[in-house]
Amino acid sequence: MPDKVLDDISHRRYNPLTDSWLLVSPHRTKRPWQGQQEAAVESELPEYDPKVGPIYHPLTYMCHTTHMNQCYLCPGNSRAAGDRNPQYEKTFAFVNDYSAVKEQQPDYENNPSSDDPESWLLQAQGVKGVCYVLTFSPKHHLTLADLPGKDILPIIEHWTRIYANHLSAASPLAKLAQGLDISLDAPVPKDEYRYMQIFENKGAAMGCSNPHPHCQVWTTSTLPEEPGKELRQMAKYRSSHGGRHLLQDYVELELRKGERVVWHNDTFAVVCPWWAIWPFEVVVIARRHLRSLVDLSPAQRLHLAEAIQEVARRYDNLFGTSFPYSSGLHQAPLAGSEEEVESSYLHMHFYPPLLRSATVRKFLVGYELMAEPQRDITPEQAAARLRDCGGPLYRAKVA
Amino acid sequence: MPDKVLDDISHRRYNPLTDSWLLVSPHRTKRPWQGQQEAAVESELPEYDPKVGPIYHPLTYMCHTTHMNQCYLCPGNSRAAGDRNPQYEKTFAFVNDYSAVKEQQPDYENNPSSDDPESWLLQAQGVKGVCYVLTFSPKHHLTLADLPGKDILPIIEHWTRIYANHLSAASPLAKLAQGLDISLDAPVPKDEYRYMQIFENKGAAMGCSNPHPHCQVWTTSTLPEEPGKELRQMAKYRSSHGGRHLLQDYVELELRKGERVVWHNDTFAVVCPWWAIWPFEVVVIARRHLRSLVDLSPAQRLHLAEAIQEVARRYDNLFGTSFPYSSGLHQAPLAGSEEEVESSYLHMHFYPPLLRSATVRKFLVGYELMAEPQRDITPEQAAARLRDCGGPLYRAKVA
Ligand SMILES: O=P(O)(O)O[C@H]1O[C@H](CO)[C@@H](O)[C@H](O)[C@H]1O
Ligand SMILES: O=P(O)(O)O[C@H]1O[C@H](CO)[C@@H](O)[C@H](O)[C@H]1O
Repeated sequence: MPDKVLDDISHRRYNPLTDSWLLVSPHRTKRPWQGQQEAAVESELPEYDPKVGPIYHPLTYMCHTTHMNQCYLCPGNSRAAGDRNPQYEKTFAFVNDYSAVKEQQPDYENNPSSDDPESWLLQAQGVKGVCYVLTFSPKHHLTLADLPGKDILPIIEHWTRIYANHLSAASPLAKLAQGLDISLDAPVPKDEYRYMQIFENKGAAMGCSNPHPHCQVWTTSTLPEEPGKELRQMAKYRSSHGGRHLLQDYVELELRKGERVVWHNDTFAVVCPWWAIWPFEVVVIARRHLRSLVDLSPAQRLHLAEAIQEVARRYDNLFGTSFPYSSGLHQAPLAGSEEEVESSYLHMHFYPPLLRSATVRKFLVGYELMAEPQRDITPEQAAARLRDCGGPLYRAKVA
Repeated sequence: MPDKVLDDISHRRYNPLTDSWLLVSPHRTKRPWQGQQEAAVESELPEYDPKVGPIYHPLTYMCHTTHMNQCYLCPGNSRAAGDRNPQYEKTFAFVNDYSAVKEQQPDYENNPSSDDPESWLLQAQGVKGVCYVLTFSPKHHLTLADLPGKDILPIIEHWTRIYANHLSAASPLAKLAQGLDISLDAPVPKDEYRYMQIFENKGAAMGCSNPHPHCQVWTTSTLPEEPGKELRQMAKYRSSHGGRHLLQDYVELELRKGERVVWHNDTFAVVCPWWAIWPFEVVVIARRHLRSLVDLSPAQRLHLAEAIQEVARRYDNLFGTSFPYSSGLHQAPLAGSEEEVESSYLHMHFYPPLLRSATVRKFLVGYELMAEPQRDITPEQAAARLRDCGGPLYRAKVA
């Protein structure tokens, strides 16, 4: 148990993964809320705004292909650039029609030089890459919470395939990728890249503009800030702790203590981390060292699918609503030194904004942006709530 | 001019204040938006939801004190803890009834020890402090955009007073504070603290739960993350550049280049910084070294008031709406070493979420949270738009 006093006093906690602090104010939940409320999400079969939403076929739950505002993710429908989706049955990946990065663009570099001190104040680097969209299911009205683990497995397999296809030929993981037991039939990049970020924005509150279940996969020629910070911290820990892994030591400690653990199976643990910022933030952590998706055995892939299903279902059950969140996988870079790849440790973050109910969220605004992240309930309190939400999904859906 | 090519290619820019990078994707604005829209704010005198909003007196624009859901910030009204606001005429400050930090709580420290490696993974520090709310005007329906510079001046004076009252007796600024030309009649803390963060959340989109114009002032026994990072970067620059200041060199460079400058007077410049994350982010930077509010002469205080008025009015004019944002002042810590105080450089950040119109915002979600901040228009494009919005406030209000 943490000192009981932390339930009552304002304190800061340290995040060893990013080397940063956050402010925890447990007593602050008593504050009444009169501000903006999120729209509650229907708990029955969804109804959509006809202006922006698709029209379903009542038996297949797929979108009419004749409707003007049809969903561009449903099987058989056409997309912005005019391409038509295949009649896919499980998952489907394609290059985003409005990608944030592209494979082809002029080269650009303006490295700061000591002759020109101003060049340090105005530094830029060109970034190339590919942005994919990956659908989770042909059915428009489902979410990860509705899918049993065995139906989440094809998503894990598709992530593994795309990741394997993008590994640099020089990566220590490249050989492993070639020996995988699953087909590598997935997009292949034109070039080699540095990092792949797989992430999902779920729900309108998290900027998702299409409820059809999907994630995104952004691959870049540069190592982004967050995984970069984590990698440096993990490598430092490893070298100062005789080769032990920060996240393995951490997850073992949490499983021993129990108070922040939500759920676990043989391969993964779901934990509200000591340093959680978002009210019901969790991290899915491998219990033994796994560098990336290509390290997973078939059984471990199913264990990851089950862990994700536990998180998604418990989230929905917590407030009886389709729970918004952003999630993302952190794993080994596509190209990196032996040390970087060996220090990498597979885990998945979930950042959900809801605080008290389906309509009242936590805003990370003025103080959080200008000074330091601040949270209102302790991670121990959040974990206790999520442990209690393990029953069947609160709504019945035709899957 | 920056290389013209940066208008067309994806690139990263470096933020020297926080030593971090962000991704810029200028072509991505072409993306259609079908996601969540913000509620547009009425451009006429505001109408409120009777469930949560106050009832105005039609002549004074103050709230009826007899109404159940009366505004707790209007003069004469009573607040959650039962205290009644005075009939204030300009500004008014009080301790937040739901403070994130408190002056009195048990002491707490669990410093990591090398005997117990786990103590490094679960670090916490107690945090004491005070949270104030400071109203900008007795009139419920006004915003900084509606107030002329001379009516923003009392706010700057009140900030200066509170800051002066909280300076540590050992601070090199303490003497200066005592010699101020304004009265120090403002809240005084029970204890000495390390840092004061003055910030405003404006608009429901930025978590503001009461439209009555106000800001918050959070004072803590610890130095928060963001000002901490900035201070370290500024001190490093100063020591490696013969005592020159990062932000002074930067603002001079920007005024010479012009392309990211929105407006300036003799003391301050308003700039869309090279490293802006939010679509229309600006920073108000002192043109010469000022460590904190107590360094401002009376004329310079008015100059700061005018700069803030320019930002607020241009923001509202941009999309013809009451523009949401979070803003915050960064300045010298209340208690700190000589080096820290001398390296401090007064500036004010504005982080506004709107991207394309009164209802379409930028979401900083999946990729931004998991990997790296990403923006869709260049700061040069944003600055050009804001330079063009300088006319009178688009709406006429009875002030
Ligand atoms: O104290 P307020 O204005 O009710 O609260 C608002 O600002 C705070 C400081 O940025 C945030 O922690 C809260 O999430 C937000 O709703
Ligand atoms: O590409 P989408 O899903 O339309 O866009 C969403 O996710 C992106 C990646 O987190 C963000 O940059 C956008 O602001 C958000 O609206």
